[in-house]
Amino acid sequence: MARAESWRLDPASYPVSMIIAPRFGDLDPLGHINNVAMASIFETARVHFHHLLGRHPADQGVRWLVAAVDLKYVEEAHFPYDVVVRSGIGHIGNSSWTLFSAAFQKDECVATCDTVMVMKGPKGKRIIDDDIRAVMEANAACRS
Amino acid sequence: MARAESWRLDPASYPVSMIIAPRFGDLDPLGHINNVAMASIFETARVHFHHLLGRHPADQGVRWLVAAVDLKYVEEAHFPYDVVVRSGIGHIGNSSWTLFSAAFQKDECVATCDTVMVMKGPKGKRIIDDDIRAVMEANAACRS
Amino acid sequence: MARAESWRLDPASYPVSMIIAPRFGDLDPLGHINNVAMASIFETARVHFHHLLGRHPADQGVRWLVAAVDLKYVEEAHFPYDVVVRSGIGHIGNSSWTLFSAAFQKDECVATCDTVMVMKGPKGKRIIDDDIRAVMEANAACRS
Amino acid sequence: MARAESWRLDPASYPVSMIIAPRFGDLDPLGHINNVAMASIFETARVHFHHLLGRHPADQGVRWLVAAVDLKYVEEAHFPYDVVVRSGIGHIGNSSWTLFSAAFQKDECVATCDTVMVMKGPKGKRIIDDDIRAVMEANAACRS
Repeated sequence: MARAESWRLDPASYPVSMIIAPRFGDLDPLGHINNVAMASIFETARVHFHHLLGRHPADQGVRWLVAAVDLKYVEEAHFPYDVVVRSGIGHIGNSSWTLFSAAFQKDECVATCDTVMVMKGPKGKRIIDDDIRAVMEANAACRS
Repeated sequence: MARAESWRLDPASYPVSMIIAPRFGDLDPLGHINNVAMASIFETARVHFHHLLGRHPADQGVRWLVAAVDLKYVEEAHFPYDVVVRSGIGHIGNSSWTLFSAAFQKDECVATCDTVMVMKGPKGKRIIDDDIRAVMEANAACRS
Repeated sequence: MARAESWRLDPASYPVSMIIAPRFGDLDPLGHINNVAMASIFETARVHFHHLLGRHPADQGVRWLVAAVDLKYVEEAHFPYDVVVRSGIGHIGNSSWTLFSAAFQKDECVATCDTVMVMKGPKGKRIIDDDIRAVMEANAACRS
Repeated sequence: MARAESWRLDPASYPVSMIIAPRFGDLDPLGHINNVAMASIFETARVHFHHLLGRHPADQGVRWLVAAVDLKYVEEAHFPYDVVVRSGIGHIGNSSWTLFSAAFQKDECVATCDTVMVMKGPKGKRIIDDDIRAVMEANAACRS
């Protein structure tokens, strides 16, 4: 079974941090934060992270689409403790990139998330421009 | 960028099928079915698939936990067209197993999902018993 | 405590019917379909009902906004039994109208929902035109 | 069309305040916070408010069930601005009570919510005990 690599569980591996409070609606009959709800928490952190990149997709006539999401659940997460999501850019390709994130409760990693994004314009995939690429590189995740 | 393998896009690769209607609430500002909403659709299909295994977790005093979810978004999915989710078992370990699923709209694959489940009892991981293992093997996904 | 009126619990009071399957994600720690999830189920039924009216909001340059939602929970609802939502138009005003709905599981009413909608154009509230009004009147809920 | 009473739009009418950040998943194709998502935000505020009452339902062997929810949408709400939910107790009956809440963005009321709760024990409705009643009365909403 695939496990998260150990550096992914370390908050110091990610440059950006955000606090997201769980909602009652995140809970499922097992009494913990549901795995899909955790995906929603990562999604909100991702949107905030992308604001850092300094360009809103709508400003460019392009769409930033989610191509893949890979979630690993490390520990059960519980309500109502704050979830701290830490994020950093992973691989940067021509028109796609990966965002590495990890969620923590009480300083313990509860889940990791790798999101592959792709930038599309009216004529298909769109090359990541140098300005955005520079911001991405400045916010890379790294093995600490 | 990781892509879904071609056999994963073929409905014939999966023994079990289920129709799930999208909800208006699955839509996001891009006007398509949101990627997290697609995870929720796969979750419901997974729960139904696991009913096939003939034992409800609660009957055994054990918990079936989601350890990992790997989603690949192949095409944008839209409301209100039915989503057909097809599923089959992948790898079976000692106490964990993988469920391979794919979602189709209008006969086209829109997303795939690999879910790693783990069975836990009061004393930690629990071995999959022979009865459940036999049902899993009878419902395996296969490269067609 | 406000209760649903008895005629609202009768399926025969509503001209339109739709079946919506609950999702695992609708469940909360109490093990039943969460009250907010039931609101989501009613929302999907409402969107489908409004398709009956023969005009999509986007075709007219107007927006159909939800002004109020009044939900009464009659019985606990459970997964995975189908929810049948029955709906009919209530009061029709100049630019707003009410949709009366009720949700049933196993032929028993589990919840009712009154939704007040308002039609807005670029210059504010918009009068409901005669064509839509006629379709609304033809799909009215009625005390049976 | 039923409107929220004017005192309900005044933050000073409610003794308890809580900040809830919207999620990307709260947005719908109209680009605003969806009405069902707003119900989820009110739900989380309600759960936190009830913690104030000093007894967790599970401590008493009773269930606190939502009997009715009445939502009025005053203005469209938007991502990512914080939602401040203010709440106070309304009517207190024998075994049920009403929670009055209002949601604000940028100091403007965007929605109100009246939730009727009912307390049930193994033998049916359960009388609200004096300790909880006193806390409820101390946290009443009031026309300012």
